[in-house]
Amino acid sequence: MASDQPDGATPAVTDIPGFWAVVPAGGAGTRLWPLSRSGSPKFLHDLTGSGRTLLEETHDRLAPIVGDRFMVVTGAAHLEAVRGQLAALADDVVLAEPSARDSMAAIGLAAAVLERRGAEVMGSFAADHVIADPERFRSAVAAAVAAARDGWLVTIGIEPTFPSSAFGYIHQGAVLDGHPDARAVVEFVEKPSVPVAEEYVASGNYRWNAGMFVVCPTVLLDLLAEQDPGFAATLRAIAAAPERLPELWQKLPKIAIDHAIAEPAAAAGKVATVPGGFGWDDIGDFDSLATLLGDQEECVVLGASDQVQTAGVTGLVVPGSGRMVAVIGLDDVVVVDTPDALLVTTRERAQDVKAIVAALKEQGRADLT
Amino acid sequence: MASDQPDGATPAVTDIPGFWAVVPAGGAGTRLWPLSRSGSPKFLHDLTGSGRTLLEETHDRLAPIVGDRFMVVTGAAHLEAVRGQLAALADDVVLAEPSARDSMAAIGLAAAVLERRGAEVMGSFAADHVIADPERFRSAVAAAVAAARDGWLVTIGIEPTFPSSAFGYIHQGAVLDGHPDARAVVEFVEKPSVPVAEEYVASGNYRWNAGMFVVCPTVLLDLLAEQDPGFAATLRAIAAAPERLPELWQKLPKIAIDHAIAEPAAAAGKVATVPGGFGWDDIGDFDSLATLLGDQEECVVLGASDQVQTAGVTGLVVPGSGRMVAVIGLDDVVVVDTPDALLVTTRERAQDVKAIVAALKEQGRADLT
Repeated sequence: MASDQPDGATPAVTDIPGFWAVVPAGGAGTRLWPLSRSGSPKFLHDLTGSGRTLLEETHDRLAPIVGDRFMVVTGAAHLEAVRGQLAALADDVVLAEPSARDSMAAIGLAAAVLERRGAEVMGSFAADHVIADPERFRSAVAAAVAAARDGWLVTIGIEPTFPSSAFGYIHQGAVLDGHPDARAVVEFVEKPSVPVAEEYVASGNYRWNAGMFVVCPTVLLDLLAEQDPGFAATLRAIAAAPERLPELWQKLPKIAIDHAIAEPAAAAGKVATVPGGFGWDDIGDFDSLATLLGDQEECVVLGASDQVQTAGVTGLVVPGSGRMVAVIGLDDVVVVDTPDALLVTTRERAQDVKAIVAALKEQGRADLT
Repeated sequence: MASDQPDGATPAVTDIPGFWAVVPAGGAGTRLWPLSRSGSPKFLHDLTGSGRTLLEETHDRLAPIVGDRFMVVTGAAHLEAVRGQLAALADDVVLAEPSARDSMAAIGLAAAVLERRGAEVMGSFAADHVIADPERFRSAVAAAVAAARDGWLVTIGIEPTFPSSAFGYIHQGAVLDGHPDARAVVEFVEKPSVPVAEEYVASGNYRWNAGMFVVCPTVLLDLLAEQDPGFAATLRAIAAAPERLPELWQKLPKIAIDHAIAEPAAAAGKVATVPGGFGWDDIGDFDSLATLLGDQEECVVLGASDQVQTAGVTGLVVPGSGRMVAVIGLDDVVVVDTPDALLVTTRERAQDVKAIVAALKEQGRADLT
């Protein structure tokens, strides 16, 4: 394969023995309503027009390096849909959360289960992100796994493409000894203002935190035990006796993995980062989806283009009910058509979709959310 | 009743003996797609939110002065729908055109049938116009009937509210002897440019031609016979032997009543006009519908408002499929939702809807037009 690579390209990474992928599949994605619903979150949808859902693409992207060492942690409500989309997965690698308890509980449960199964290294990757260059993504993961084997909690730091105020940042320091692709993490920084983000991007020392953590399961649980011994002990107790999950799960704290272990571990000098320049997007709203799918000069259709008529339109049109969608004379418009709900807005107002979802809930129309 | 009228108001007009209303119900109204379709033209729809269709409102408006002397001329395809909406009408007052042959044939057929039935005066009124003040409308019709009984072809001239370039104009002259509410017509003028229309409106001597003609059936047919003896003779032959309609109808010229008789009769000094200041609209497109239904500062919903969510929107939203319609952050927007087609545009581009209809036909999607 290496001979097929253009000069300077990353060589293809193949199976990484002992390495498991963990995919927490949750989150309603209300800013992508009416495509994404609480009963059918965005990871279950094909948002790129590839013919594969975001969850399926996440599996496709990791399969070359993990084979069947792929674990999903999802809400009980989505268990059937996840199994339907990833039918090749064994039953014991799809874990169902009895209720949503944030990312530390979800990823920690996977770590405890994998620790008992003898997994050497795990990496957690969201189910609903889009990655332009899977090959470079896998190379970054391979570098992260190598550092994780030396005991580091490794995060993959996304190369920022603009001074976003919507993401947390990773402040990177010196190159790690023995790991030329990895750097120590000075600290994690919460979502900054745009001017501060501009300084971060200009400095070249900051990267977006996409929540991709690569670490040995035991290291992860031990880091958690340092902060909250009971939390780690409960996770290990569930792994030892899965029938106790319903009883013990509700006792777990609701906390993000960033706050629970990544930030304290960074302060203690135990976190490293591997740069990820593979083209990444979390599709936060219809504006970012429009950017991902096309340029500003055209009207992008996600779905059956024979169900769309446009004249003098730029923006994004998503036909999704089988009906004809005709749009005339609107710039940067967003039209999303589904069988029971229709959204018409602009790219600029894409963030306000969540207010509509909130209003519908308040009006007793949770059936539509 | 007169004592209930505010000072200076028109007294209520009641039954006008011997007077028949003729309502040609045709025209697809493609600029109101997807509400209006060739199979379901705009006169069959409730476009004002009154709970009555435009055809039903036309009947409601005329019933006080004509009782059951109400005749509809419509396409064979719409016969069933018309009978359904106007169930009280006798079978012999709903005439079906075998094919569309323009307004002279439609109104002339009604005139020939009514001539044989001994009707004294007839008035033709479109099925899809909106009139704000039916009482004043009926007063104008009564004045027109009085002049028609003296042999005039009488048109009701709509008071122009802006210098429209979308309507033909009536140039009015001197007051008629014995008919203080009527004036002679100097000429009919085709749709003018906006600057010319501005002069017309400023002069006070011009009125919009809404195609409302009041005339004795025999006068109408004799005026036609002066221009085209065969046309008038054929219409009278059909009235004498209705079973010959399919055979004779296809021989009739396709011509508008304005060109066939109104313009030549005006040149011959045989046309009068009665001013109509009763608030009139022909709902030419969604822009004029939005103006009719609300003001510029708000979002008007035509239909079930509980199916609509808006935030920062002005314009017109028509929910019509049972689905939730959410619109955010758009000014002067037009959203029209139907079970098989959706339109999203602006009030400014409302005229371009007909291009979408043409495109759909070209693409073999006549099922949607």
